[in-house]
Amino acid sequence: MEKNYEHVVQYYETDAMQIVHHSNYIRWFEEARTWWLSESGMAYHRLEEMGIMMPILSVNAKYQQMMRFGDIATIHLKITKLTPVKMVISYWVYNKQTEELCVTGDSLLGFLDRATGKPVSMKKSYPELYESLGQHTMKS
Amino acid sequence: MEKNYEHVVQYYETDAMQIVHHSNYIRWFEEARTWWLSESGMAYHRLEEMGIMMPILSVNAKYQQMMRFGDIATIHLKITKLTPVKMVISYWVYNKQTEELCVTGDSLLGFLDRATGKPVSMKKSYPELYESLGQHTMKS
Amino acid sequence: MEKNYEHVVQYYETDAMQIVHHSNYIRWFEEARTWWLSESGMAYHRLEEMGIMMPILSVNAKYQQMMRFGDIATIHLKITKLTPVKMVISYWVYNKQTEELCVTGDSLLGFLDRATGKPVSMKKSYPELYESLGQHTMKS
Amino acid sequence: MEKNYEHVVQYYETDAMQIVHHSNYIRWFEEARTWWLSESGMAYHRLEEMGIMMPILSVNAKYQQMMRFGDIATIHLKITKLTPVKMVISYWVYNKQTEELCVTGDSLLGFLDRATGKPVSMKKSYPELYESLGQHTMKS
Repeated sequence: MEKNYEHVVQYYETDAMQIVHHSNYIRWFEEARTWWLSESGMAYHRLEEMGIMMPILSVNAKYQQMMRFGDIATIHLKITKLTPVKMVISYWVYNKQTEELCVTGDSLLGFLDRATGKPVSMKKSYPELYESLGQHTMKS
Repeated sequence: MEKNYEHVVQYYETDAMQIVHHSNYIRWFEEARTWWLSESGMAYHRLEEMGIMMPILSVNAKYQQMMRFGDIATIHLKITKLTPVKMVISYWVYNKQTEELCVTGDSLLGFLDRATGKPVSMKKSYPELYESLGQHTMKS
Repeated sequence: MEKNYEHVVQYYETDAMQIVHHSNYIRWFEEARTWWLSESGMAYHRLEEMGIMMPILSVNAKYQQMMRFGDIATIHLKITKLTPVKMVISYWVYNKQTEELCVTGDSLLGFLDRATGKPVSMKKSYPELYESLGQHTMKS
Repeated sequence: MEKNYEHVVQYYETDAMQIVHHSNYIRWFEEARTWWLSESGMAYHRLEEMGIMMPILSVNAKYQQMMRFGDIATIHLKITKLTPVKMVISYWVYNKQTEELCVTGDSLLGFLDRATGKPVSMKKSYPELYESLGQHTMKS
């Protein structure tokens, strides 16, 4: 989890204030999360095969500095809370050039059984995966 | 088909040039088409139930005037070509306030059988629907 | 503020889970807010002329029920907190057909002077506007 | 121009048909073009400083194969027509894994003077830049 995700700001992500539209950071959170889960052996397709879904239950973002076209975002992410049926992933979006922290946020993901659509205890049903998530969880 | 579709330009559709990003007009084409098919008794859900898919095979757009946040787009659309297995829908996007023609375009849609994914002759398999589309087709 | 905003779910707003992608609700919050400010005599262009900017400082969303293509969202919104330099607008997104509450959220907006980019006291500099916002603020 | 641009398909780019929504390829064209212009010493910011704008005058896309979440797009691009006041850039989007050609398209860009908003002859006003574009133009 020491690896960071990079995203080059695209022109279509800017708005009339000539900054990145705030909704796009929510998309970058997903982008970074997908990448990181894949790097950590939990690629979406593998979870799908195992019969697990991880829907977003809530999302929060704080905007501190604006980013602009051509900037590169460096996104750090960590699991900051893990329970048998859900987890919180937190994000820190930096401007790569200036090293300023621009946006922070987190998303709450539930663990669902793909077949039934009901919550599944990752701890009971997928103990190895749960342990792996635990190793990536920030100790407080 | 004399009715027109209206779309209010949203802030999140603008870009750093303070105009609507050109990719959004392609989305408005879809928005107007969906609305019009529904108004004409060919709602997506009904087509789905009948086992028909209409994937986009190509799309073209010409940008003549820029639109900005707060403008209202009035979109005219017509079937400009109809064959048993595909049709062309053309679009004219006007600025409602200035009445200027801003963007024109068209999209080519194929008629596919949802089950097999193969082309289906609308004329043979759904003659009523084909006739209905014919009535909406611009005579040259 | 008794009026509600309606948004028809578009196909381009869905994702591979066949539901509205969660980032789009953040865009609808903006859409509803823009509409409501305009209806309440505080259209973006008027604020701009007065020299006021209202950047988004934070955004939160909770996802309770999924929405799908063709659904109509009815969005209620209220100012739930107002101080001289910022306000919180809260949103309740309902499925118009089923009347289920699908998504709730809020956004924190700062009041900035467009020329200097610095916080401005709405209460001191624009007392009439501040009073108007106050009338739309939910009493606790 | 032998270098190609890569884009990893994101979940937020898919639609309810579980494929990439067709409007996103138009955004990838921009993404690849921005990257390529930058690699070729014509970064947006440099053009901006020189007082040049390159608005999109038209765009076309043909959809041959669908792409899905997790696929990687390899995008080839070439200038296929160059005149003193405009150019056509063409795109070939391949699925990196299967090597199938999925989408082709092109966009027509005008050369405008940023200050006046009027067409500018790249050949007369910026002969070095024009020559550089010429070297990247596909010989027929």
